[in-house]
Amino acid sequence: MSSRVKSTLMKFNIHLPNQTLRSALLDKINQKTKPLGSLGALEALALQIGLIQQSLSPQLFSPTMLVFAGDHGIVASGVSPYPQAVTAQMVFNFLQGGAAINVFSRQNNMQLRVVDAGVNHDFQAHPDLIDAKVGLGTKNFLYEPAMSLPQCEQAMLAGFELAENEAASGCNVFGFGEMGIGNTSSASCLMSVYCDLPLAECVGRGTGLDDAGVDQKKAVLQQALDRHQLNQGNSLQVLATFGGFEIAMMAGAMLGAAEQKAVLLIDGFIASTALLAAYKMQPEILQYCVFTHCSGEAGHRKLLQYLGATPLLDMGLRLGEGTGAALAYPLVQAATGFLNEMASFETAGVSARAD
Amino acid sequence: MSSRVKSTLMKFNIHLPNQTLRSALLDKINQKTKPLGSLGALEALALQIGLIQQSLSPQLFSPTMLVFAGDHGIVASGVSPYPQAVTAQMVFNFLQGGAAINVFSRQNNMQLRVVDAGVNHDFQAHPDLIDAKVGLGTKNFLYEPAMSLPQCEQAMLAGFELAENEAASGCNVFGFGEMGIGNTSSASCLMSVYCDLPLAECVGRGTGLDDAGVDQKKAVLQQALDRHQLNQGNSLQVLATFGGFEIAMMAGAMLGAAEQKAVLLIDGFIASTALLAAYKMQPEILQYCVFTHCSGEAGHRKLLQYLGATPLLDMGLRLGEGTGAALAYPLVQAATGFLNEMASFETAGVSARAD
Repeated sequence: MSSRVKSTLMKFNIHLPNQTLRSALLDKINQKTKPLGSLGALEALALQIGLIQQSLSPQLFSPTMLVFAGDHGIVASGVSPYPQAVTAQMVFNFLQGGAAINVFSRQNNMQLRVVDAGVNHDFQAHPDLIDAKVGLGTKNFLYEPAMSLPQCEQAMLAGFELAENEAASGCNVFGFGEMGIGNTSSASCLMSVYCDLPLAECVGRGTGLDDAGVDQKKAVLQQALDRHQLNQGNSLQVLATFGGFEIAMMAGAMLGAAEQKAVLLIDGFIASTALLAAYKMQPEILQYCVFTHCSGEAGHRKLLQYLGATPLLDMGLRLGEGTGAALAYPLVQAATGFLNEMASFETAGVSARAD
Repeated sequence: MSSRVKSTLMKFNIHLPNQTLRSALLDKINQKTKPLGSLGALEALALQIGLIQQSLSPQLFSPTMLVFAGDHGIVASGVSPYPQAVTAQMVFNFLQGGAAINVFSRQNNMQLRVVDAGVNHDFQAHPDLIDAKVGLGTKNFLYEPAMSLPQCEQAMLAGFELAENEAASGCNVFGFGEMGIGNTSSASCLMSVYCDLPLAECVGRGTGLDDAGVDQKKAVLQQALDRHQLNQGNSLQVLATFGGFEIAMMAGAMLGAAEQKAVLLIDGFIASTALLAAYKMQPEILQYCVFTHCSGEAGHRKLLQYLGATPLLDMGLRLGEGTGAALAYPLVQAATGFLNEMASFETAGVSARAD
């Protein structure tokens, strides 16, 4: 595995789902006791999951939320109103069950796994914490790449294997969340380079910058982009230069989950840029993705457009941690639920249209 | 009860929630371990439910979905592609557990109650069917009022008492759904008169009319509006003239639920016009309403705007039955969940903003 990842990072074994079942799935959806198309986005979702699982009766098993945490050297340049220590503090909060993602994962029966991808704190061993630390935070990409290429590969590989292990334990639907003070800065640069969009369209308030703070953040990030002069051609180098350990590890986990033919629940702005990196390496991954919400963070709507994605929710969420994915999970369950449990016109003895 | 409803139908005992707790609720929300405002619409929802229940720790108990079914005389004038018999057939489908609302209510642990408000079929007694039949369908409002004023009062009273009984059994959160071939025609006329909007802005494809069908529907409904020449001044008369038994009964149930200080989950186009009738009788009801989704049925978006409502979901659903309300219920649970279960910055030992 390691050798494959290291030697040919762009070559994951992800295939477009076979489309043979499409018409049978559409027939099954259309014969349910409801007006044609009246379940809107849930119908497209049922079709997608049926194709991913190659089944007319797809089932969701052991839903798992992976939350990756990492620290960012760029925070030294004043891009966040919160101190870096909050990343580690929030990891403790996750482990104590008090964060939003704990509440929403519990509510919707998702198993939560917290992954230390590279927090600037040495945690003691904890049964609920997966230690995959690549380093004590990234370097400041205003001056140098956030991580080396081997570090980026290490992070991706750890994520890939984590997803593989979860799938081997029976999980076929993954949520992906993150925590990392400063990581909207990474995400903005990744989006700008990968999508070839002006930085201004990719930067938002993050955890809550005021106008002056946003201007400062934009100035810092523009300087960083100008320094590195990258284009999207080398997707791994872009990820290493501007990414966070949690973002690179999440990208690897997404690729691993898609290779296992799981359903990927994509959260907000940061998670979408991790997917963007994975997509640049293996575009087929998109077929496995459910875009759970449009974040209130500026840039996310445009990023979703770039990916041709229609999000399930649009509620002004901008918390991260995977919260949007956890909140939308019941809608995903509803999509397989109606497909499996609703009666057809024939079995229910309901008359079809008169015309 | 009956005398009150009959003599002063507009005078339900619904009050604007006391606002004294507002600042304490906002403080509690803002001290949770998340950036300010980052849970978007969920934060407004938590505040609303806290005020409804007058509690910093609101709880949702015995969530109940009331689905009202009724038939419509107007279908004789060719406004739906489905035959009237489908209403009764779908009631059987509800009782057998095979409809979309069964699936989504089961998934989200909502108790489903099916109410025969006025279906054109004599059902045998069934433990899961509440018999509140006002008549075997309404009259054709193209020629005469759909129901008499006493019938309308009877329907509203039955709904009111039904909600009162459910609340007495411990329910404090209600979903409202409906089934009735032809009832988008009722809803369109109710919206046009109550909102004083041109009919064209209130008519859609219903269960799936083509362009010619929509033109035919518009022509029939415009004729009906022209015949009755009503304005919104007499809200009960408007409801009696254009309503369905299921719509009037739902309006009564909404008023009853709000009087019991329950949370009202408003579904799509038809349910919103039932609420519109209730709102015209007692505008304070709006404070108890959660607008669960924007329907794909033309007219609903504008109706939500008229009510100043921001829906939770916007997924192109247009099935009715209460499906949007059932699908959105986990988001409502998430709102009380984060308020009750998340740690605060202080209890979690997480640093506040640096600025």
